Amino acid sequence: MTDTPYLAVDLARLDRNLQAVAELARNAHVDLRPHAKTHKTVELARRQIDSGAVGLTVATIGEAEAFADAGVSDLFLAYPLWVSAHKGSRLRALADRVALRLAVDAVEGATRLAAELPGAEVLVEVDSGQHRTGVAPESAGEVAVAAQSAGLDVVGVFTFPGHGYGPGHARSDAAAQEITALATAAERLRDKGIEPRVRSGGSTPTIEFADSGVLTEIRPGVYPFYDAQQVELGVCGFDDVSLTAVSTVVHRDGRRVVLDAGSKIIGADRPAWASGHGRILDEPDARIVALSEHHAVVEYPDENTPELGSTVRVVPNHVCTAVNLVDELVVGGGDDGGAVPTWRVIARGANS
Amino acid sequence: MTDTPYLAVDLARLDRNLQAVAELARNAHVDLRPHAKTHKTVELARRQIDSGAVGLTVATIGEAEAFADAGVSDLFLAYPLWVSAHKGSRLRALADRVALRLAVDAVEGATRLAAELPGAEVLVEVDSGQHRTGVAPESAGEVAVAAQSAGLDVVGVFTFPGHGYGPGHARSDAAAQEITALATAAERLRDKGIEPRVRSGGSTPTIEFADSGVLTEIRPGVYPFYDAQQVELGVCGFDDVSLTAVSTVVHRDGRRVVLDAGSKIIGADRPAWASGHGRILDEPDARIVALSEHHAVVEYPDENTPELGSTVRVVPNHVCTAVNLVDELVVGGGDDGGAVPTWRVIARGANS
Repeated sequence: MTDTPYLAVDLARLDRNLQAVAELARNAHVDLRPHAKTHKTVELARRQIDSGAVGLTVATIGEAEAFADAGVSDLFLAYPLWVSAHKGSRLRALADRVALRLAVDAVEGATRLAAELPGAEVLVEVDSGQHRTGVAPESAGEVAVAAQSAGLDVVGVFTFPGHGYGPGHARSDAAAQEITALATAAERLRDKGIEPRVRSGGSTPTIEFADSGVLTEIRPGVYPFYDAQQVELGVCGFDDVSLTAVSTVVHRDGRRVVLDAGSKIIGADRPAWASGHGRILDEPDARIVALSEHHAVVEYPDENTPELGSTVRVVPNHVCTAVNLVDELVVGGGDDGGAVPTWRVIARGANS
Repeated sequence: MTDTPYLAVDLARLDRNLQAVAELARNAHVDLRPHAKTHKTVELARRQIDSGAVGLTVATIGEAEAFADAGVSDLFLAYPLWVSAHKGSRLRALADRVALRLAVDAVEGATRLAAELPGAEVLVEVDSGQHRTGVAPESAGEVAVAAQSAGLDVVGVFTFPGHGYGPGHARSDAAAQEITALATAAERLRDKGIEPRVRSGGSTPTIEFADSGVLTEIRPGVYPFYDAQQVELGVCGFDDVSLTAVSTVVHRDGRRVVLDAGSKIIGADRPAWASGHGRILDEPDARIVALSEHHAVVEYPDENTPELGSTVRVVPNHVCTAVNLVDELVVGGGDDGGAVPTWRVIARGANS
């Protein structure tokens, strides 16, 4: 018996989600390189690779080390690292044992990386409208030339259309900007005589726009599990959500109940457009109106609320941060009273 | 050399904060029982007890187990647990080795707890205006009587004035409601012939109102470290903040820089009244305008921004969730190139 709150995975739904996106990638003729920051588990990585993924994407050196330790042999670290001497030594150790692809988005960073890891394969990060990291598409050629001159092996361009996380037309608008940005950046590289054979984009909300002829690779993260954000963006339905926080009703008053799943297990992510701090899988009309570290205050449509002590499944707003809060995922629900299969979160807290 | 991002503690500031609140509690003639969910470290618990704390407050059975393992002998689990059979066996094991005080806020929960742990010492949780868990002050007598009849040892009442986390008069208003609620609830217990010798309240924002004659105990959590919320509420200044996320500038463009500290190390907490997703310790006029898992986008007042590759100290909005994201805290800064003292976060992810 697992005590609440815990994160549970519905394996049938998970496998259905994996197959659907693998098929979408095949039909769009793009490589699938899922972002492993979402799940951080060997079991899910294996399932992704077995269903056709070419390798994994990671966000930090620590994540790359964890998946290399687990036997994954092809990794793209999609982050424009500033490579200190110590990070350089860690990258060299990694490059000795896996196919490693790195990211650059500025001349200085590329020069620094080349000094630490000469010959490294890199993609130039391009800003397609999220205005986070990434160089303007028009300037991608200069960064590519500097990287090449410094001794790096420039194989393409990539972007993350994170501004697709928004209501209304945000997804399709971001997908269109993503394609334009990658096409422009690719052109700027070709102008400099560098062939951008990898043009990598994609995110779970923009995955359906992959078949553009521009992208050669997509890097969605959330799709194995989905989450409340994806439901509210219209990317999936509640029936597709494969990960929930199993929680207990600890307080009950009128239309409100309080659950023992708080921000320390479902995460505090709450975009302005979200309807609350997460959703209730089995009651789409309920809303999480307040969230503390160990309390979710849920407002139901009427006083027909779950009993004290009963179990409620919470859908986190953002599954990537929820998974990072636990040491293991309980697979299959864990309500059978016997031994419960668990998947270990191997790169939990691997922030550097 | 510790790679960024990591959480660093300034020990001199920390000790100053501990002494100041210990002195405040002494002057207000209230017991200090700090909430350990904030720091989850043995070293800090020891420092709190050595400077006069009567014991610790915890939020979960897992936290209680971790601190019992570490030798802390007096714990208040300030949460109205729904005690399943398995949680009951864990509580019994705990009660065998430490002085354990528990919480009830309803007749059913009290009956359930009494069945699992007869004779347990409990406080009745009262709602002082946050509207999370807790019974209405006027009804505290009924819950106390039910708990006593079921076989629990009712020693008092407690509340958490969480609605004091707000701008303007919220702190003083919540503190006033806290005192009224505890006074009313205590009176209702006395009406039933039960002496509420413990009247426990307090939170870091309301700590200065402890000297009311009503409270016998305060349970602040955040005060050893403070955080951006406390700075913005006017509870402390930047000079009091003892914990920061040490991060590296990975991108720079005009007035904006991007740091490698994201929501997976500083947490995604962002109350509506907060000015951003955290603050920059050394530049009060900068704002974190966007936060992803591994990126903080910071807007500086002008283009005089930190260099690429330089180090920036980020003050998390909510330090309790930030600490829960790491395995250890680096004490003293960690920039000396040699062996770095660290404190292990022993109850990380102890959600159940």
